[in-house]
Amino acid sequence: MISFESDYITGAHPEILRRLSEINLEGLPGYGTDPYCARAKEKIRQACGCPDADIEFFVGGTQTNLVVIATMLQDHEGVIAAGTAHINTHEAGAIELSGHKVLRLPNSNAKIHPEDLEDYVSEFYADENYEHMVFPGMVYLSHPTEYGTLYSKAELEEIAAVCRKYDMTLYLDGARLAYGLMSHETDVTLKDIARICDAFYIGGTKAGALCGEAVVFTKQNKPKHFMTSMKKRGARLAKGWLLGVQFDTLFTDGLYEKIGKHAIDLAEQMKEIFRKHGVRFYLQSPTNQQFVILENRQVEQLKETVAFSFWEYYDETHTVVRFATGWSTTKEDLEYLDAQLKTMVKVSQGDGSFDSL
Amino acid sequence: MISFESDYITGAHPEILRRLSEINLEGLPGYGTDPYCARAKEKIRQACGCPDADIEFFVGGTQTNLVVIATMLQDHEGVIAAGTAHINTHEAGAIELSGHKVLRLPNSNAKIHPEDLEDYVSEFYADENYEHMVFPGMVYLSHPTEYGTLYSKAELEEIAAVCRKYDMTLYLDGARLAYGLMSHETDVTLKDIARICDAFYIGGTKAGALCGEAVVFTKQNKPKHFMTSMKKRGARLAKGWLLGVQFDTLFTDGLYEKIGKHAIDLAEQMKEIFRKHGVRFYLQSPTNQQFVILENRQVEQLKETVAFSFWEYYDETHTVVRFATGWSTTKEDLEYLDAQLKTMVKVSQGDGSFDSL
Amino acid sequence: MISFESDYITGAHPEILRRLSEINLEGLPGYGTDPYCARAKEKIRQACGCPDADIEFFVGGTQTNLVVIATMLQDHEGVIAAGTAHINTHEAGAIELSGHKVLRLPNSNAKIHPEDLEDYVSEFYADENYEHMVFPGMVYLSHPTEYGTLYSKAELEEIAAVCRKYDMTLYLDGARLAYGLMSHETDVTLKDIARICDAFYIGGTKAGALCGEAVVFTKQNKPKHFMTSMKKRGARLAKGWLLGVQFDTLFTDGLYEKIGKHAIDLAEQMKEIFRKHGVRFYLQSPTNQQFVILENRQVEQLKETVAFSFWEYYDETHTVVRFATGWSTTKEDLEYLDAQLKTMVKVSQGDGSFDSL
Amino acid sequence: MISFESDYITGAHPEILRRLSEINLEGLPGYGTDPYCARAKEKIRQACGCPDADIEFFVGGTQTNLVVIATMLQDHEGVIAAGTAHINTHEAGAIELSGHKVLRLPNSNAKIHPEDLEDYVSEFYADENYEHMVFPGMVYLSHPTEYGTLYSKAELEEIAAVCRKYDMTLYLDGARLAYGLMSHETDVTLKDIARICDAFYIGGTKAGALCGEAVVFTKQNKPKHFMTSMKKRGARLAKGWLLGVQFDTLFTDGLYEKIGKHAIDLAEQMKEIFRKHGVRFYLQSPTNQQFVILENRQVEQLKETVAFSFWEYYDETHTVVRFATGWSTTKEDLEYLDAQLKTMVKVSQGDGSFDSL
Repeated sequence: MISFESDYITGAHPEILRRLSEINLEGLPGYGTDPYCARAKEKIRQACGCPDADIEFFVGGTQTNLVVIATMLQDHEGVIAAGTAHINTHEAGAIELSGHKVLRLPNSNAKIHPEDLEDYVSEFYADENYEHMVFPGMVYLSHPTEYGTLYSKAELEEIAAVCRKYDMTLYLDGARLAYGLMSHETDVTLKDIARICDAFYIGGTKAGALCGEAVVFTKQNKPKHFMTSMKKRGARLAKGWLLGVQFDTLFTDGLYEKIGKHAIDLAEQMKEIFRKHGVRFYLQSPTNQQFVILENRQVEQLKETVAFSFWEYYDETHTVVRFATGWSTTKEDLEYLDAQLKTMVKVSQGDGSFDSL
Repeated sequence: MISFESDYITGAHPEILRRLSEINLEGLPGYGTDPYCARAKEKIRQACGCPDADIEFFVGGTQTNLVVIATMLQDHEGVIAAGTAHINTHEAGAIELSGHKVLRLPNSNAKIHPEDLEDYVSEFYADENYEHMVFPGMVYLSHPTEYGTLYSKAELEEIAAVCRKYDMTLYLDGARLAYGLMSHETDVTLKDIARICDAFYIGGTKAGALCGEAVVFTKQNKPKHFMTSMKKRGARLAKGWLLGVQFDTLFTDGLYEKIGKHAIDLAEQMKEIFRKHGVRFYLQSPTNQQFVILENRQVEQLKETVAFSFWEYYDETHTVVRFATGWSTTKEDLEYLDAQLKTMVKVSQGDGSFDSL
Repeated sequence: MISFESDYITGAHPEILRRLSEINLEGLPGYGTDPYCARAKEKIRQACGCPDADIEFFVGGTQTNLVVIATMLQDHEGVIAAGTAHINTHEAGAIELSGHKVLRLPNSNAKIHPEDLEDYVSEFYADENYEHMVFPGMVYLSHPTEYGTLYSKAELEEIAAVCRKYDMTLYLDGARLAYGLMSHETDVTLKDIARICDAFYIGGTKAGALCGEAVVFTKQNKPKHFMTSMKKRGARLAKGWLLGVQFDTLFTDGLYEKIGKHAIDLAEQMKEIFRKHGVRFYLQSPTNQQFVILENRQVEQLKETVAFSFWEYYDETHTVVRFATGWSTTKEDLEYLDAQLKTMVKVSQGDGSFDSL
Repeated sequence: MISFESDYITGAHPEILRRLSEINLEGLPGYGTDPYCARAKEKIRQACGCPDADIEFFVGGTQTNLVVIATMLQDHEGVIAAGTAHINTHEAGAIELSGHKVLRLPNSNAKIHPEDLEDYVSEFYADENYEHMVFPGMVYLSHPTEYGTLYSKAELEEIAAVCRKYDMTLYLDGARLAYGLMSHETDVTLKDIARICDAFYIGGTKAGALCGEAVVFTKQNKPKHFMTSMKKRGARLAKGWLLGVQFDTLFTDGLYEKIGKHAIDLAEQMKEIFRKHGVRFYLQSPTNQQFVILENRQVEQLKETVAFSFWEYYDETHTVVRFATGWSTTKEDLEYLDAQLKTMVKVSQGDGSFDSL
């Protein structure tokens, strides 16, 4: 069965596997003190245009978020996020386990708005009882968001301005950053992100690595003895070079961009196929994840031959499902999808718009 | 200045002070192992009609909530509450510090609705990714709510039915329970609460004690070695009898009810006074806290001579403020308030209704 | 039965009860914003000779320790303490609940030695793997210790010097500070403690208050938004003046010293009585707690008529028990004890010395 | 330079790399729901002789320990371990971060003794104040220990009997289990461990995997909704098959045993070489880690040409260092070591015995 279930259904880009085999017998020091980690960090610094950034590697996204947020927040603070944010929904309460509240902001298309942020924080400080409440200490953005949407450079700048005004940290979750950077509809570069955010991570797992995310602290603001804080949370690999080698490879000869571009090009073709077959989009996503609304009978039929992800119930007879492209998606996969959609039962659809989640 | 700022502005009911003086030199064993704690527990069991309830005393409400919720929830669970719930707003993130998420439900007049609860939980279990999410493990109600409103017996029963259906604990925060029980508009008794809820607390601090809240576990469900879990959170007093003596007094000769009734009677008179002066109510509260909407100029003027609490901004020119009665409020206090309102600048007011918070 | 079980068997010093009655109807703002808290803080500042100290009031000792230690430590740090330290033994793991390790140091007579401290910390930093280990971030002392012993001024200075050298905070638990300051064998004053320590607390519960401990931050080092961190841990009383009034009273006209002196004078007389009856001391305590070794048959006999505390098993036939004096102990109590010891079965005792715990 | 620094200096056993390449494009469901995880679990169940064991895969050892211990302990409990235990020393306080105390037991050669365990627990329950203390809820053993030593079957049985008597869980850290099982001096099999322990983990990282540890719950005792508890701690890989494929390979055709046997055979030869050159052993280790005492001048000289690990200072002029063999150590590596030791400066050594750590 051909699968569009996610961008992490297959293993590593072949170049990564090749490099891992190559260095397999080298005999390297443990816990990230090897030359591959050092080299990968240097390449990421250069790609970010941020020569004194501090970089650390993690195994996965939830682990990254929970360590970074727990160590950057102060005791009295929580983190502001959209209700749809991964940290608020699908990380099983990892942020709360660290003792910090996720302060939920309204969103549209999974994005928060600078004005809502300003309102929330200014109202907080205007409240006479604010010392009894969780302080807003950080703003969490995902880019692309959990629904594939993107912030514009202007939006990021405005959000960052509110953060500076109220002494909050701006942290960006880039689990799928490759697809955000290579989107046909973005004006945001990696250097912009490094300049605007206080910390962010560059996702590897969902962009062709076996596992791995690279956190970038851009403002000489890596928490003190961060290595120990990582260890304390089980987030240091004995064979730390496993992450270093992968990021070294991803940031050599533009592989990270190539992977992003490949998936984006195929996602645009996939959108074309959906349009051709009259499939309705849940929202407009300019990245590798596409959310479409199918009638429940269509879902049942299609899943016999194609793998995709359940997302949420739209109404009693419709379901939102996700199709994703990735580094290993092929033109042939799309042709197969096209063929399956051709045979899919047709349904009349009313108008549906995605206002807020 | 006369104060209606809260129901905890004055000390203890004189009978409590008298009893504390009386036993001051007795020489009692520590940490709640004294006969006064035992006697108070027995009286509470009787008042609850629950002969095998387990009772524990705490110093204050946030401490009570954080220990009970942390020890009754399992690792994968969070607690459902109204967005307006004290645990979600004014406890500085105490529940999250214990590693558990507050799962926010819509509310009207600070109350959650059984149907919203059913919807939330059934949608949770229908979600294919629910294992990545925080499980609903408990429902938190405050009664009276933070806005003085009350659940009816039928509403409590319906909420309890949803809890049983989905194996969730029902916990009721009774910081102001005295005023809920003595309200002129309630059909809920202490025995109803003990029968319907899995755990709840009877507030002392806001009902005439110096400090103290009594948690009642009604279903032989006190967490194992709860005393140690309390100690671990700094919630055992060396002079534990300080709480026992107070609750023994409150539950002797109906003092707790008397205190509640006194404040409710005066609150009803206060409402009459507000109505007489055309002061608009933010919502209809049948208990000792009254929330009214004043024009900002009125707030400025009135606070020169009367103390009350800022609650929240209503709009650019109006503010919601709270007036509370308590065990020590007197008829003379109300006459004074009446006189002050008489001299308050009059304003024309549009219509304002309280839909949801 | 006459009780020497502890220094918290009776209520409050009569002067405290009198003051609480006096202000009972005043109508005070909540959460420690009242004038009594302010006045008490000012008096403590003066008594400490530390005009810009920050003071906060807590209800009990474990609560104090867990909030202060959790908020003063950084994420990668733990707290060094004697194995006998209250935080390492009888606080049910409260420090660990806050995510920090208690790093155990050897002790003699419940005191740690400056050289052991220096050794521990220098070895830590000499270890090539120290980034995988818990950093020593604070030193916890109790004074008097859990066994009634006291540090000399020179010892405190030496320990503080090690702390400064390795950038560790020095925190002193003064649950029984009144008895340490008034001991006949101490050269340490309250001003010394305020000068030498970064933070410490002045115990009220065990020195004549109903409840209450006063934390003193001496070096402009109160954690940021500490009020919110207290609230988050359930450590703010709505009727915060309950603590303010008590400490205001304790620090008026030298009441705190008087209470300490009274108990110390009686403890010295109690030691004399023990000596007279040939009762063996477990160690030499210059404060209000006396630890003596009784044969198990003696324990059984004596506890029929006198209350005291089991401490630990000494050997198969002997037990260490504690007798404490307090603000309410009287000369008559001691005469009673004398009489009881007279009738106690005599036993031959070998020599026993207390080396380390 | 030839390295004996650890057993995790090189990558994966070639067979593992081969299998990862083979399945790289398969398109697998996420988060451990793939057939390779299922197959690996089934093979481990068979190898353990425990057909209804529950198995879960983790990335590394600290992560494994912190999730298993946090979810198996109850709120009032801590975990008993040797002072030398990895969880007590080199996991940066991960257990304490989960809110639980490590209760330290004496050890000899890094092993705890059943009698010490019995004494500790029986004294705990005999203490009249035990409700103020951390309950012993679990016993943690490492096998091999951090110093390469092994428990005998009889010792494990005796420790398990104490655990059953006092209702404690027995958990075994098998980070290097491959070397324990293949030691020439053990009478403990994998089936013995599965029968005796309540939970344990089979280490992959240090036995030829890129990363990965397999936890085995042997008594139908996997904590409820453990998947969610793992996710909450960042311990679920999106590409979960990465761990499944590796353990499937390790438990196919006896690869795990082969890797263990290879390293043990070479370790025995290494011991022979050390003996030949008069190098003193710090203790007798029957597994792949060898701890020897070198004069500091020897350390300086040797490390020019051979990599090994600093362990601890022995005395002012001597250091304990570790040499480890692993899956990739070769006979040629040992010949090289032999040659280097030949040229090492000779020193006269006194007698040194390892009593306790």
